[in-house]
Order: sequence, then structure tokens, then C-alpha cells
Amino acid sequence: LKCQLRRKDGAVGVPARINIITLGVADLDRAAGFYEALGWERSAASNDDICWFKTAGTALGLFSRRALAEDANLPDQSSRGFGGITMAINVDSETAVDEAIGAAQRAGATVIKAPRKADWGGYSGYFADLDGHPWEIAHNPFFETGPEGLLRLP
Amino acid sequence: LKCQLRRKDGAVGVPARINIITLGVADLDRAAGFYEALGWERSAASNDDICWFKTAGTALGLFSRRALAEDANLPDQSSRGFGGITMAINVDSETAVDEAIGAAQRAGATVIKAPRKADWGGYSGYFADLDGHPWEIAHNPFFETGPEGLLRLP
Repeated sequence: LKCQLRRKDGAVGVPARINIITLGVADLDRAAGFYEALGWERSAASNDDICWFKTAGTALGLFSRRALAEDANLPDQSSRGFGGITMAINVDSETAVDEAIGAAQRAGATVIKAPRKADWGGYSGYFADLDGHPWEIAHNPFFETGPEGLLRLP
Repeated sequence: LKCQLRRKDGAVGVPARINIITLGVADLDRAAGFYEALGWERSAASNDDICWFKTAGTALGLFSRRALAEDANLPDQSSRGFGGITMAINVDSETAVDEAIGAAQRAGATVIKAPRKADWGGYSGYFADLDGHPWEIAHNPFFETGPEGLLRLP
């Protein structure tokens, strides 16, 4: 693999970690209430402009969509359709998928794909949060999980 | 906070973790080559349809954008503009921000915001990968980092 050769070269690269996912939202209070309703803990680092949620591993940020586009120096588009990115939460069983999708729905999410057997051999469903950001809840019997439920990729 | 009350109730929620970020891409080989050029390690779990990269914490997946939209049961839109989500990599110094942005640029990324002092007191820049997905490289002197460079939110 190319990357391994490059690593041996000791070249400067980009650290392989994703520290933060920030979702652009229309209404910060409303969006934060949704994630709290999932049972997620708002971090004390939150302020009037950004809400932080602690997760195992990557932190989740909620931020004004307009301000996020501006921060990234990108024009915001009117479309709120598929943005080319999904986020996934892996759970231990098919029942846990159903339960999590149900919990999200009760929190106000839109179920965009009811849980079902997936052609890759697992079981998954999708919900969209209040701003349309797509989350997959999946049971993947082929992926090992380690501490805190994080995946252990081979 | 609402979420803490709910947790005490023992209600079923959604696990607070982000296992996978999947980026929809136009050309899988080309996109994978870009992330390898950043120095990231392709996982042996990769196959002809999906490329997996190991990161500290959340796994990064690359997948056909069209297939990803289909998997999420969402219509894909022609626009490749801002999708309302950014990903951030935190590094230890301003110099490390400059170096990582430079490394990304050499790997073929477009620098969409040259590194600069941020109004929140840190230092950051943005690049877009080959499919336009926005990554921020940031030095945030106010956030503690723990093992593997992951953030420790209060």
C-alpha cells in the first residue's frame, strides 16, 4: 500500500483521526434538544454559538449551518438534500438497531429507512435528524468492537 | 440538562458514539489514493465497493456517492456544494496546522481557507478533498487532548 511506503519515508502527513464532526443546523436549541432526547450528554464546553456533545471518540458539534459554511469559506446552498456524508452508530444486535431507531423517532427524527437486512450481511436502518443529517444504526456481525463500542478495523 | 434526567429514567436511547463517517465519492480508487497520500492506512476490511481507513476513534469509509445515497434511501442531488457537515482534525500547534494543510495540498486537496487565527482564539485552515468534503485542521489551545490525540471534552 502506498501509505505504508510513505510512512516509512517519514514524510509529513495529516494525523489519521477525526476529532470533531460538526453538523450545520437551522435552530441550535431545537437541534441540541433532539440530541439530548437521544440520551446524549451536552458538554460544559458548549456556549451560545456551539453545542458540544461528548461521544466515544469523535466529538459531535452543532453549529449554525450558515456560520459553518462561512467558517469553511464555502457558499451555503439552499438545498438541504443529501450532502454526500453519512454517520453510523454500530450496535450489538438487530434488536438494538430497532430500539435505537425507535428511540430516535420518539426524539423527533424522521426514519428514512426502516431497519432491514442489508445485502452486506448485517442489519441497518437510517434516520434523519431535525436538519436532515443522515445517521445509520447498524449491526455488523463481521466487525469487532473494542472499548466503548468503537470499531476495531483490521 | 434534559439528557441527564432522561438517563436517570433509564429510557432506551441511542449510544453516544460515532462509529463510522462515510464519504460519498465519485471515483473510489482516486479518493482512496488521496487519503493514502495523507499517510492514512487502508484497512484490510476494504473491498471493491468500500475503502476503509483506520483512524483514532471513528472509522472513515469511502463509498460511491450514488450508492451511499441509495443506501440511505435519499435522492442524490446534482450539487456538490456545502453539505452542512465538516470534519476536524486537531493538532498540537499552529505550525502543525500549516504542515498538515501543506501535506493535504500536496496530496491533491484544494485549500479552501488558508490557515489563520480564528476568532475563537485558535488557529485553523480548511481543505476540501477530491470530492469537495471539507476538513478543518485546527489548533485549539483550550481543548485538552487525551490518548491518540482525541479530544477530552469537559
